[in-house]
Amino acid sequence: MIQEIGGGVCAVWGVKAFGIKEGKKGLAVIVAKGSAAGVYTKNKVVAAPVIVTKEKLESNGGQLEAVIVNSGNANAFTGEDGLKDANSMAEMLAVKLGADPKYIGVASTGVIGRKLHIDIIKEQIDKVLPNLSNSTEANEETMKAIMTTDLVPKGYAVEVKTSAGTYRIGGITKGSGMIEPNMGTMLAFIYTDAAVESNSLSASLKEAVQKTFNRIVVDGDTSTNDMCLLTATGKSGFAIDSNQKAELKEFQNALETVMRELAKMIAKDGEGATKLIECTVTGAASEKDAVFAAKAIVRSPLVKTAVFGNDPNWGRIVAAAGYSGAEFNQTKISLTLSDNEKSITLVESGKLIKNDETALSELKQIMRAKTIFIQADLGAGKETATAWGCDLTYDYVKINADYTT
Amino acid sequence: MIQEIGGGVCAVWGVKAFGIKEGKKGLAVIVAKGSAAGVYTKNKVVAAPVIVTKEKLESNGGQLEAVIVNSGNANAFTGEDGLKDANSMAEMLAVKLGADPKYIGVASTGVIGRKLHIDIIKEQIDKVLPNLSNSTEANEETMKAIMTTDLVPKGYAVEVKTSAGTYRIGGITKGSGMIEPNMGTMLAFIYTDAAVESNSLSASLKEAVQKTFNRIVVDGDTSTNDMCLLTATGKSGFAIDSNQKAELKEFQNALETVMRELAKMIAKDGEGATKLIECTVTGAASEKDAVFAAKAIVRSPLVKTAVFGNDPNWGRIVAAAGYSGAEFNQTKISLTLSDNEKSITLVESGKLIKNDETALSELKQIMRAKTIFIQADLGAGKETATAWGCDLTYDYVKINADYTT
Repeated sequence: MIQEIGGGVCAVWGVKAFGIKEGKKGLAVIVAKGSAAGVYTKNKVVAAPVIVTKEKLESNGGQLEAVIVNSGNANAFTGEDGLKDANSMAEMLAVKLGADPKYIGVASTGVIGRKLHIDIIKEQIDKVLPNLSNSTEANEETMKAIMTTDLVPKGYAVEVKTSAGTYRIGGITKGSGMIEPNMGTMLAFIYTDAAVESNSLSASLKEAVQKTFNRIVVDGDTSTNDMCLLTATGKSGFAIDSNQKAELKEFQNALETVMRELAKMIAKDGEGATKLIECTVTGAASEKDAVFAAKAIVRSPLVKTAVFGNDPNWGRIVAAAGYSGAEFNQTKISLTLSDNEKSITLVESGKLIKNDETALSELKQIMRAKTIFIQADLGAGKETATAWGCDLTYDYVKINADYTT
Repeated sequence: MIQEIGGGVCAVWGVKAFGIKEGKKGLAVIVAKGSAAGVYTKNKVVAAPVIVTKEKLESNGGQLEAVIVNSGNANAFTGEDGLKDANSMAEMLAVKLGADPKYIGVASTGVIGRKLHIDIIKEQIDKVLPNLSNSTEANEETMKAIMTTDLVPKGYAVEVKTSAGTYRIGGITKGSGMIEPNMGTMLAFIYTDAAVESNSLSASLKEAVQKTFNRIVVDGDTSTNDMCLLTATGKSGFAIDSNQKAELKEFQNALETVMRELAKMIAKDGEGATKLIECTVTGAASEKDAVFAAKAIVRSPLVKTAVFGNDPNWGRIVAAAGYSGAEFNQTKISLTLSDNEKSITLVESGKLIKNDETALSELKQIMRAKTIFIQADLGAGKETATAWGCDLTYDYVKINADYTT
């Protein structure tokens, strides 16, 4: 049984964390010893902390003792200086914790192309460390410290009860703009107190990322700093070895639950967003086609502005599916809009079946909801996928027309 | 010698045209007998007039006598009725002109998924036909009749003077939103009074489309109605046969000049746009890579909002190149911003070389220009490509949040 609990990363046994935010500059430290796995941005321009953390995890046997994260500066496109600064962040924390820096992960988020103020980070480490704790409040401060244009702190945790015992998975994330994770994700830190060896952990994380973070789009820009780290502390006393297929499947399920909720939080808190769009594509010839179509729909600026304007302009939805790269025949597609209370199927097998004034007025009512559910059946097969996005608003333009200056 | 002249399609010998616009509904007729070629949207959802015109040109030996175009209704996703209506449009015009309907092209632009009001189109044909003319004014009314959210009528013509004689190429186009042509283009009607047989015409058009209309992005949405038709009337008395390589090359050059100018007009008049962005990528490993990177940069909502905000946020440009799919190493990329008067190279071989307050203030000055030139050298090879786009503004959101309702 998988049940939501509070507390984010601090809900997980073996995790202590804290963070502070001073103006636009934040720093968080999460201490948790365990086997670990990571996925990273596939952008050709890769931020220094991503390079550094990836190298550590690939050469240290898949172990982490702590992670240090700063917000306000991405430490991306900063050359040799950037790599030195990312390593310094790990070393400064390692000294304070009495740990080896090779077990310290580093992450950054913020403006690209500016040198890091390493002195500010040094001061902030000293302010953060005395407050490390596993309390709900500590989790709250940690979530806040890693935010940039985010309006809402983002964390989620579950408790998994099995006949053999109980364990927890909790995570925090940030992300609001430059969001279309590709193979990586935004900054996300996921912990479990189950003991899982690092190969299984890595496989689980990769699969879960594909189905959760890689299915959200805010603006279609893939960041240089995307990173998702998963650490297993083992402190629940519940161990899953690689032969326990049923237990691994349940762990996968619980992990995807946590990551899916975190991913939806990012989409919902997309820059300037007022609404969450959940698009499920069914009847696709392949899962890849289903993902193509669902992501094209939630990425389309025309769909996103229509959702902002409460406008049931469904032609834009089928047009987006049409250019997505997914195979289908336009005479087979069906389309349903829903606000979770009322559903209207307005296109069936390529034919518009709801065209009257009553239907239009009901559709407009649906479009006023805070979450809009789009269901498109391509009529081309049996595969399915869900993607999440948000509306495109005046505030998105406002936030991004004046970010560095 | 290729020289710009006025008059759009009506500058071309053998072309007569006229159009009217009544509220949101417009109708244009262009009469010009000649060999013809077309390219069409690659969206899986294809509008009825695109299906109908493509079939005609494929089965009638590549000949057109006239084109009828309505604006305000896309006649897309309208099923069997839509195909019938598109054919009716051609038949009604054919009767009036005493022509065979198989030589009448049909195009539509406007809202997707609404049945065409064929009676309105019938009435408008009667209003348009008595006014057909080859005057500049007739070209003006024709350009206006096919506009939807366009603010500016779009036409361009050149005269090509060669030692063997003189001919002209002229075209008109429309397009403002749902713009990322893929293999096709928006509505564009191009004419030449050179005699060119239909295979050469088709090859020339396809190549020109790839280098012009397929390199503009307004919002990244590929329309269901994209269509570009090229007709050669032969009325200049200048004939080019398929063995005349030099003449064909010059024709190609002149054709691309006309289509490039029309493409730039679409980008500049993108919905809500205040600025044109011209992005040239050099040093790419392949032309495909250069196109990927250039289009990713002009498509990026973060780059587009930064241009709107006069913000030299160059990190977003390199990040867009990074996720474009183009191969390059981040330590090799160089980046120059220019307003055509002043150029600043701010990144050279992966290093930020302009970081002081003076440079920042000069960069902000450049960003205030009406046309922003971005030049990115990937340092990965010798190939190059240019793409055009526009800024993302409050007005784009306004226009599209409330379009059908």
